[in-house]
Amino acid sequence: MSGVIATYQVYDKNHHLEKKAESIALGLTVGSWTNLPQNDQIQLQKHKGKVISVHEIECEENIVNFLGYKATKGIIEIYYPSLNFSADLPAILTTVFGKLSLDGEIKLIDLNFTDDILTLFPGPKFGIKGIREKLDVYDRPLLMSIFKSIIGRDIQYISAELKKQALGGVDLIKDDEILFDTITSITDRVTHGKNILNQVYEKTGHKTLYAVNLTGRTYELKEKALRAAEAGADVFLLNVFSYGIDVLQGLAEDPSINIPIMAHPAVSGAFSSSPIYGIDAGLLLGKLLRIAGADFSLFPSPYGSVALQKETALKIAENLTVSNGLKETFPVPSAGIHPGLVPQLIQDFGIEQVINAGGGVHGHPDGPIGGGNAFREAISATLSGVELKDYALPNTSLQKALQLWG
Amino acid sequence: MSGVIATYQVYDKNHHLEKKAESIALGLTVGSWTNLPQNDQIQLQKHKGKVISVHEIECEENIVNFLGYKATKGIIEIYYPSLNFSADLPAILTTVFGKLSLDGEIKLIDLNFTDDILTLFPGPKFGIKGIREKLDVYDRPLLMSIFKSIIGRDIQYISAELKKQALGGVDLIKDDEILFDTITSITDRVTHGKNILNQVYEKTGHKTLYAVNLTGRTYELKEKALRAAEAGADVFLLNVFSYGIDVLQGLAEDPSINIPIMAHPAVSGAFSSSPIYGIDAGLLLGKLLRIAGADFSLFPSPYGSVALQKETALKIAENLTVSNGLKETFPVPSAGIHPGLVPQLIQDFGIEQVINAGGGVHGHPDGPIGGGNAFREAISATLSGVELKDYALPNTSLQKALQLWG
Repeated sequence: MSGVIATYQVYDKNHHLEKKAESIALGLTVGSWTNLPQNDQIQLQKHKGKVISVHEIECEENIVNFLGYKATKGIIEIYYPSLNFSADLPAILTTVFGKLSLDGEIKLIDLNFTDDILTLFPGPKFGIKGIREKLDVYDRPLLMSIFKSIIGRDIQYISAELKKQALGGVDLIKDDEILFDTITSITDRVTHGKNILNQVYEKTGHKTLYAVNLTGRTYELKEKALRAAEAGADVFLLNVFSYGIDVLQGLAEDPSINIPIMAHPAVSGAFSSSPIYGIDAGLLLGKLLRIAGADFSLFPSPYGSVALQKETALKIAENLTVSNGLKETFPVPSAGIHPGLVPQLIQDFGIEQVINAGGGVHGHPDGPIGGGNAFREAISATLSGVELKDYALPNTSLQKALQLWG
Repeated sequence: MSGVIATYQVYDKNHHLEKKAESIALGLTVGSWTNLPQNDQIQLQKHKGKVISVHEIECEENIVNFLGYKATKGIIEIYYPSLNFSADLPAILTTVFGKLSLDGEIKLIDLNFTDDILTLFPGPKFGIKGIREKLDVYDRPLLMSIFKSIIGRDIQYISAELKKQALGGVDLIKDDEILFDTITSITDRVTHGKNILNQVYEKTGHKTLYAVNLTGRTYELKEKALRAAEAGADVFLLNVFSYGIDVLQGLAEDPSINIPIMAHPAVSGAFSSSPIYGIDAGLLLGKLLRIAGADFSLFPSPYGSVALQKETALKIAENLTVSNGLKETFPVPSAGIHPGLVPQLIQDFGIEQVINAGGGVHGHPDGPIGGGNAFREAISATLSGVELKDYALPNTSLQKALQLWG
């Protein structure tokens, strides 16, 4: 076999999952079968989609109430031969979930590529190992903070905010995803940012990478990325789902753009939020981002107000890091993170993650420097097996953080 | 005002729509407000999002049952100043529905651009008028047929199928959206296709345009399009939502690619199928495709098995053709179309549409030639104000079609 196996969740109003599966397998490949002349059947056999499995599962009561009828819920796996598509994600997505995405109560849950197809994709250029080497940090989760309230601000303001965050000991600082090249340009931010971060490094010996938002027109991104790389860019933040996942791949595999890419989940909720329609977050923010070459994947943590179900967040992280021949992508569970959550984060996601906070850094009583310090203390405590409340000495950043956020 | 007004449908579990609206307007622009120093408030005022309107509407019973609680349903309009984003659709989508797409029960229903922003977008290069001039057909809906069961076939088979369809008198023939450059290349298909269609034109005097599937890697599409244009391509079919809507715009506004673009809705159902989450089909397949430069937009008709609600399909068509300073995009209501539906199609969508059929052409007792003829007869009958059953003479293609499909 050479191809891709797509897993679908369907709610079938006709209560005939096998028939549904067969009609997908044919409809998205050779079109029809039983009425084809035998010569055609012989010729087209290798192009025919195949039903791999069909399982009925319990249909949830709230879905029955939503649909207004009792549907048969099922998980269906279909194999699509690679002979039918070119080796690119737009072709694969169109094949497995093109018109099918418009066909009622169906959600694309997973894609499994045969090895020969998977090796055609680049995966991350740096991966977890490469990022750790850039920072020379190997034995703990990385720590990232996010600019806050940065819209409408000039380069002086941004530079000052960058400095404060770096002084708190974070490993990465990222632009807000809604910061575009209006008041400041990406090259401005890289140039000024590098300068600030070098100053901090000379003073403290701590290295911080700046993930700058790469934005603008699709067909101008490469040129922009090259200019920013020349100016010394550390990492690119990319709103992958505002563009298209193949744009990520195009940037990731361009040998002249030798910069890690951090994928932001903006707009991805439009695909993944419904339990009935769309594309599963574990596939979208996990497997596909890794295949296409993201070095980091941000996704909603299970703890905040904008939250994923824990099972989904863990699935994303697993897809980003499971052994599959590609480099590993850093999981970045985001939103609602404060220092008191660090033990939970490490218990759930392990060492190979980036702990990412906005309000949890900036909202600290001592500002972003205190916030960064509190997180670093919380990480040290957890890795030493000490409870945060026992680790936090009076008047330390961590103690103040625990008092504020618990 | 210069910017974009986004309309959202929300189901608010906190029953406080005004607060929800205000938090969106701030959260997606300046971040916070009341705790900002007054100097900052003065400086940031012009970047602040504004709540334009908030309306509560009745929450449907089946949504209550689905959510498991009674939410307050509302329609919220928020204004985002253009100062905050660069003039491209990825920036606009990230601003208005970036992280917000991940924030629970919210659907992006509409976007309204102020005129100064709208004029920054190209719209269709040809539009309805330009396409009609290419065909020299002005007084009736156009007729398109789709290749069927084309996967795994060689150029001889494709050429023969193209010829049969053209002989039926259709104005356009489109590739299957799942046909990629594997067995045949786009340049092969254009070269052979042009040859066939020229033969048909010399024999019958009827002109047919071939919409060839433009596929492959995002950063190779322009080069591929140029090569296909040199080979004589008439129209490009593009799976816009497998790529990204800005890719469409990049192709549409490239002055060196002077070929109309037909947008296929593949994968768009992953955004638009849920009534609770995602992006409305009227916005996605109507307004945004037109702004970005599609000359045709295919969408599910309200009549077939893969169907949109009639209201949604009509909204798409309205957005494609309403006067807004851009050229008009041809609406192509698709799926489940047979000759007997022509009076309904013309009543619902008027003259300015492409009537598009696959099975309704190929499944005719006399094959695609009979199918095309039957559609052309049905169009003539309807435009003459004659009922199909009165128009259809014995043994005509139309009569056979009516016997088969009603």
